[in-house]
Amino acid sequence: MPASPIRKLAPFAAAAKARGMEIFHLNIGQPDVASPPEFWKALDEADHTNVAYSPSEGIPELREAMAKDYQKKGINVTPEQILTTTAGSEALVFAMTAILNPGEEVIVPEPMYANYIGFAVMAGVKAVPITTHIEDGFALPSVEDFEAKIGPKTKAILVCNPGNPTGTVYTDEQLEGLRDLAIKHDIFLIADEVYREFNYTGKPVKSMLQLEGIDDRVVMIDSVSKKWSLCGARLGFLVSRNEEVNQTALRAAQARLSPPTLGQIGTMGALTTPASYYEDVRSEYMKRRDLLVSRLRAMDGVVCPDINGAFYATVKLPVEDADHFCEWILGEFDLNGKTVMMAPASGFYETPGLGKQEVRIAYVLNCEKLGEAMDCVEAALKQYPGRTN
Amino acid sequence: MPASPIRKLAPFAAAAKARGMEIFHLNIGQPDVASPPEFWKALDEADHTNVAYSPSEGIPELREAMAKDYQKKGINVTPEQILTTTAGSEALVFAMTAILNPGEEVIVPEPMYANYIGFAVMAGVKAVPITTHIEDGFALPSVEDFEAKIGPKTKAILVCNPGNPTGTVYTDEQLEGLRDLAIKHDIFLIADEVYREFNYTGKPVKSMLQLEGIDDRVVMIDSVSKKWSLCGARLGFLVSRNEEVNQTALRAAQARLSPPTLGQIGTMGALTTPASYYEDVRSEYMKRRDLLVSRLRAMDGVVCPDINGAFYATVKLPVEDADHFCEWILGEFDLNGKTVMMAPASGFYETPGLGKQEVRIAYVLNCEKLGEAMDCVEAALKQYPGRTN
Repeated sequence: MPASPIRKLAPFAAAAKARGMEIFHLNIGQPDVASPPEFWKALDEADHTNVAYSPSEGIPELREAMAKDYQKKGINVTPEQILTTTAGSEALVFAMTAILNPGEEVIVPEPMYANYIGFAVMAGVKAVPITTHIEDGFALPSVEDFEAKIGPKTKAILVCNPGNPTGTVYTDEQLEGLRDLAIKHDIFLIADEVYREFNYTGKPVKSMLQLEGIDDRVVMIDSVSKKWSLCGARLGFLVSRNEEVNQTALRAAQARLSPPTLGQIGTMGALTTPASYYEDVRSEYMKRRDLLVSRLRAMDGVVCPDINGAFYATVKLPVEDADHFCEWILGEFDLNGKTVMMAPASGFYETPGLGKQEVRIAYVLNCEKLGEAMDCVEAALKQYPGRTN
Repeated sequence: MPASPIRKLAPFAAAAKARGMEIFHLNIGQPDVASPPEFWKALDEADHTNVAYSPSEGIPELREAMAKDYQKKGINVTPEQILTTTAGSEALVFAMTAILNPGEEVIVPEPMYANYIGFAVMAGVKAVPITTHIEDGFALPSVEDFEAKIGPKTKAILVCNPGNPTGTVYTDEQLEGLRDLAIKHDIFLIADEVYREFNYTGKPVKSMLQLEGIDDRVVMIDSVSKKWSLCGARLGFLVSRNEEVNQTALRAAQARLSPPTLGQIGTMGALTTPASYYEDVRSEYMKRRDLLVSRLRAMDGVVCPDINGAFYATVKLPVEDADHFCEWILGEFDLNGKTVMMAPASGFYETPGLGKQEVRIAYVLNCEKLGEAMDCVEAALKQYPGRTN
């Protein structure tokens, strides 16, 4: 795999750091908010003799607690329909491996989470992009547009909802459109719902597993990384009512023995987190989102669409080449010893040439730091020699 | 992948448990000894804000501490030559992926750790077995025998030393023979050394990385699972001085983002474990090994070779079909409400039909329980209807 545009920035960031610059990291979805204390409490109280393998499918009590948690959210699944994985990453690879044969295709709206491409490579399958556009807030393409992409090798559609890198939340009607399409063409829906808790629409976000009439063709991906700021615990879930998919994924899980036991123990604690935690986290991210949107929209030539979920915005800058702007702001720019690292959006498009004027901003810093980061972006856009308007 | 002989035993074990039987688990390499308290202490003292991604290659301080630890053992490597992985399992997949192209071959002495086959499937490569024999203590085949297996597709030889499932420890001369072969045929050596600390020969066991004249063709696999009873921490290492291998493995590591952070934090603590821990653990396993060998050799018709390392023995039983015996001892046998689960050795041979009279016994129970387990095996062999002599 070629180095991604984000990785290409690493030496520029390292050089800036070496010069003593403070860098605001808006480039990676690494939340700064605190994990639930219940996570640490469960770890502290665990048997400290040793750390044993868990069953390949996960600790039974964890799968039961997860099933109850989904049921509370109106997602009806049994513990047997939940496979514990080494983060959402592994769940996505297992899903692709279980659903697609090598060489087959999964349709994915772009801009997309860049690692989908890597996971598809690992599974030996092809991610076929369907382009969404900043002009209409990266809205889900129409059923007709999806249908035009479906060919004999198409086995699945993969959507991330709420969406990374766009912050888009899909409507029930849009999800139902995908359901009808999946039934009509006998394909699967893979729903990456790891940002479920980050929904600012005021209405509940529907899980693909709540769609009626398509029990056997949905595979949902979940993770503890984002909802509890536990990216390093490496714990995720593949949830499906399709027994064949679950059996195939289980065999893949058995080949790698066990998902991380410590993350599982802590997660059993995190599942007892009171509702106030989620409300506090959501209101914190909404404050940041509001700040980010108002600051960006006040900048000349910047296009910032509505952001309804997750903690990302993909925005258009008045620059010819955002890859270069992201290098320049790290390498040449300096606002009182501070600068910003952002992810060039070109890395989130599979279609070559798209997203050249866009960047992804992860608002994973508190409002004070985020405000300072926006000061940097604003000043940098004024100074940048490659500005277009 | 077909279900392994061990997995086929699972329903028999479940049924025995449902009948209220106590089962001595000699079937899996899940150590019962305590992990170093330093592991837990480091976790307790860690920043409890949240659990962040680590760099894909591992936390820098951990890689530095590991390098120092290797240097203390006479294995000269730098932190940059150590890639942190999600357990030894992932390190093995990365090693195969980095060294072999799809369809190429790695030669592995059999009986072998059964998951090597699964890892080879994941990497799209072929594990070619070279058979070792219980009659000569599963000694490493001669250089000539290895050479006869080397063909145009051969890219590596993989050995586990000290060995799972045989408990064999290879001599310096044997390792040097493999080195010369690797140089002659321009192939790699993959050394699975996760049992390094479990060496009962009284002489140091040489790491492949200590062989002279072959710096660039050795990839060593390490893990915290066995040495510190941390199987569930899912933390391992790929160690190599070959920069191209390291770069390729790093790209694979970047695709899965981060190895487990909690395991890394704990491991930094575990690396400060005093020497007495390892001595205590080794002497405990040697006591068990002595008990196991003496009990097995006292049983009519049982062949138990010398065991010099790891915590396994592959032994020959006076039965036609050890797969069936392992089912029978779980399903039909009962010694005061107790019985034994063992791993049929057929699952450790890639050549069909081999190992039918052998089982692998993991001596991961204390001497009292191990003695009771041996009582069961002894009594069962007397009662078993399929006995051969």
